[in-house]
Amino acid sequence: MAVGLSELPALLSIRGIRLGTGSAGIKKPGRKDMVAIVCDEGANVAAVFTRNRFCAAPVAVAREHLALGAVRACVINSGNANAGTGEKGLADAKQTCTWLAEAAGLASEEVMPFSTGVIGQYLPMDRIKTGIPQCISSLSEAGWADAARGIMTTDTVPKGASRIVEVNDATINLTGIVKGAGMIRPDMATLLVFIGTDARIDVSLLQNTLQAAVARSFNRITVDSDTSTNDACVVMATGQSDVEAVHPGTAVSDAFTDALTSLCVELAQAVVRDAEGANKFVAIEVSGGASEQDCLDVAFTVAHSPLVKTALFASDPNWGRILAAVGRAPITNLDVNKVAIWINGTQIVDGGAVADSYTEEAGQQAMSQSDIHVRIDLGAAGASACVWTSDLSYDYVRINAEYRT
Amino acid sequence: MAVGLSELPALLSIRGIRLGTGSAGIKKPGRKDMVAIVCDEGANVAAVFTRNRFCAAPVAVAREHLALGAVRACVINSGNANAGTGEKGLADAKQTCTWLAEAAGLASEEVMPFSTGVIGQYLPMDRIKTGIPQCISSLSEAGWADAARGIMTTDTVPKGASRIVEVNDATINLTGIVKGAGMIRPDMATLLVFIGTDARIDVSLLQNTLQAAVARSFNRITVDSDTSTNDACVVMATGQSDVEAVHPGTAVSDAFTDALTSLCVELAQAVVRDAEGANKFVAIEVSGGASEQDCLDVAFTVAHSPLVKTALFASDPNWGRILAAVGRAPITNLDVNKVAIWINGTQIVDGGAVADSYTEEAGQQAMSQSDIHVRIDLGAAGASACVWTSDLSYDYVRINAEYRT
Repeated sequence: MAVGLSELPALLSIRGIRLGTGSAGIKKPGRKDMVAIVCDEGANVAAVFTRNRFCAAPVAVAREHLALGAVRACVINSGNANAGTGEKGLADAKQTCTWLAEAAGLASEEVMPFSTGVIGQYLPMDRIKTGIPQCISSLSEAGWADAARGIMTTDTVPKGASRIVEVNDATINLTGIVKGAGMIRPDMATLLVFIGTDARIDVSLLQNTLQAAVARSFNRITVDSDTSTNDACVVMATGQSDVEAVHPGTAVSDAFTDALTSLCVELAQAVVRDAEGANKFVAIEVSGGASEQDCLDVAFTVAHSPLVKTALFASDPNWGRILAAVGRAPITNLDVNKVAIWINGTQIVDGGAVADSYTEEAGQQAMSQSDIHVRIDLGAAGASACVWTSDLSYDYVRINAEYRT
Repeated sequence: MAVGLSELPALLSIRGIRLGTGSAGIKKPGRKDMVAIVCDEGANVAAVFTRNRFCAAPVAVAREHLALGAVRACVINSGNANAGTGEKGLADAKQTCTWLAEAAGLASEEVMPFSTGVIGQYLPMDRIKTGIPQCISSLSEAGWADAARGIMTTDTVPKGASRIVEVNDATINLTGIVKGAGMIRPDMATLLVFIGTDARIDVSLLQNTLQAAVARSFNRITVDSDTSTNDACVVMATGQSDVEAVHPGTAVSDAFTDALTSLCVELAQAVVRDAEGANKFVAIEVSGGASEQDCLDVAFTVAHSPLVKTALFASDPNWGRILAAVGRAPITNLDVNKVAIWINGTQIVDGGAVADSYTEEAGQQAMSQSDIHVRIDLGAAGASACVWTSDLSYDYVRINAEYRT
């Protein structure tokens, strides 16, 4: 089902980061559902987490361990989110860290736990326990592709990407994997994303660079407006590159920031392309706004509209629904008489009403593509922003109606 | 498909209000798609309209005519919303008023136009013209039920209700009809609602009473979070009741306000029961909030969640999705450890986590009902609010994907 998503590209190994997987049978037997990621000593780790106030137990524990400043491993399970599970959930998340730490020769506080799957059920700890040694025994710098499969839930394809920053004769490598297809409306973080790099970079700059990259990538996508309880985006920097250390304001810093942002955008777009039931990949670009926030508010209002999304599913150029969504966007001083809208280059609205040049045939042609670019100009000032989303199909309903069966 | 909605009840005639219908073949031949409502001279009329900035041409014209203070007729077409149609749309709406006025012996400014249907197409004026005389020749005080059918679009059943206020030996009668099943997230008005009463009430009190009633009825429902460009709610008071005039602060005023509010709640709930693709009628009651607005914010966040709505469609007690929606609601100072949730009386969440007493069987039993009452207590203070919504089904997607075909 994934829209225009090719096979998982070759993922670069990152010096100092090993990944292993296991089959614990958490939800279904036989599939890989546990992943361990272990960095060599000396790695710096940064992360952002969901702002959903009902954050899951593993998110609370991961935040706590990250704050202690010594994290260098992640343990991840799919099939169960360990969210809404109270004190027992916290204890289970900590126990998982302890098991991973014992098997890897680490302290429990050096491990961050992550869970994804159904909300409100306790982790099956006996199965989790069986998965740990499988993860440890398979640890390998070549483990990124298997790990991308191990973190999947309703994802139909594994998703990952790499970047290389060349500096003189040396390189900084970056590789990231992501899972997520529904309950996608990240708020300062998203889904589960694990990025490794061999860059030499201190932890505060790494955190700042990650937050800036997330703001322009994962925080610009929405599948269904529902913010997950378990979102997390982690970047691990081993410092084993031969490139000089990344310092603010340098050319290396600019190149690293661009590479990390570009990697995050590719991973974020991959989530939308593999969104539950998706038949369309839709970029909604709003220009001519009084502020970037205005542009984002309009873009997300359109991106969340079930009527726009069902019209996209049907390849129906029912552009009146886009216009109606713009009209209810929570911004002030919208002058509807200045609004213009294009779909894949075909102008449909001019001055707030149907464009003179518009024909139903041209609209139909534009909407029949699988990649759709909606451009909305507000005619107010010079700000702009772009968000990415998918359509709303029978399969979205089927997948989410049958999710627990 | 309508959930628990019986046949259209007997609708009381209102002295001084006549309704007529016509078949203009606007979208499909043969069905009633035009309605005229004409009040006797001396009627007072109040109305609220959509806050969507892309309001349709007829809404703009209706607002303009209402402000002139002499309105006593409505002309309505279904099948075409005359929205996003610019200057030509305004001219078409005014022309429709003029034709109705000429046929009924009124001035054009005494007529308000209303349109509902597809957005972004010009009204077929030749067909509109043929429908007018049919509406006029069939005018009758007994015309409410036919009018309820004439304003339908994707509605599966005609919707209307009546109320009687008894004062001593006299009565005030109220009858209302409503259309709407999708693009339903009213903002200070809703859909198309036409209410008649023989109450003797001045226009400013009528307007205030209507606004208060709408705030507690149509503004408390959502089907799909999309606010229509054409929403309007009109009340027409002929003053032909034998009951004393309604003055503020009197027992008659209280009784009239209660009756109007109760009528609006019944009509609003009927819209949700007949929502596109609906299999469930869902009341979401939030209590224990710091303010009524906090309660509404939480209730609407849950009501808009596609994941909650697909779980409702599947009768799946996947209450974690409710909890996740509460956690992302835009309120401050949410203490998740105080949140409790019940579904049809079965407690599922206590202190922010799964309730000790909860069993999957009890949850399944609760969710299998067609009427679902979700109660969410925030444990903060004493405010409360209730909104009504429906589930998200295959049929919602089908209806909206195929809407224009």
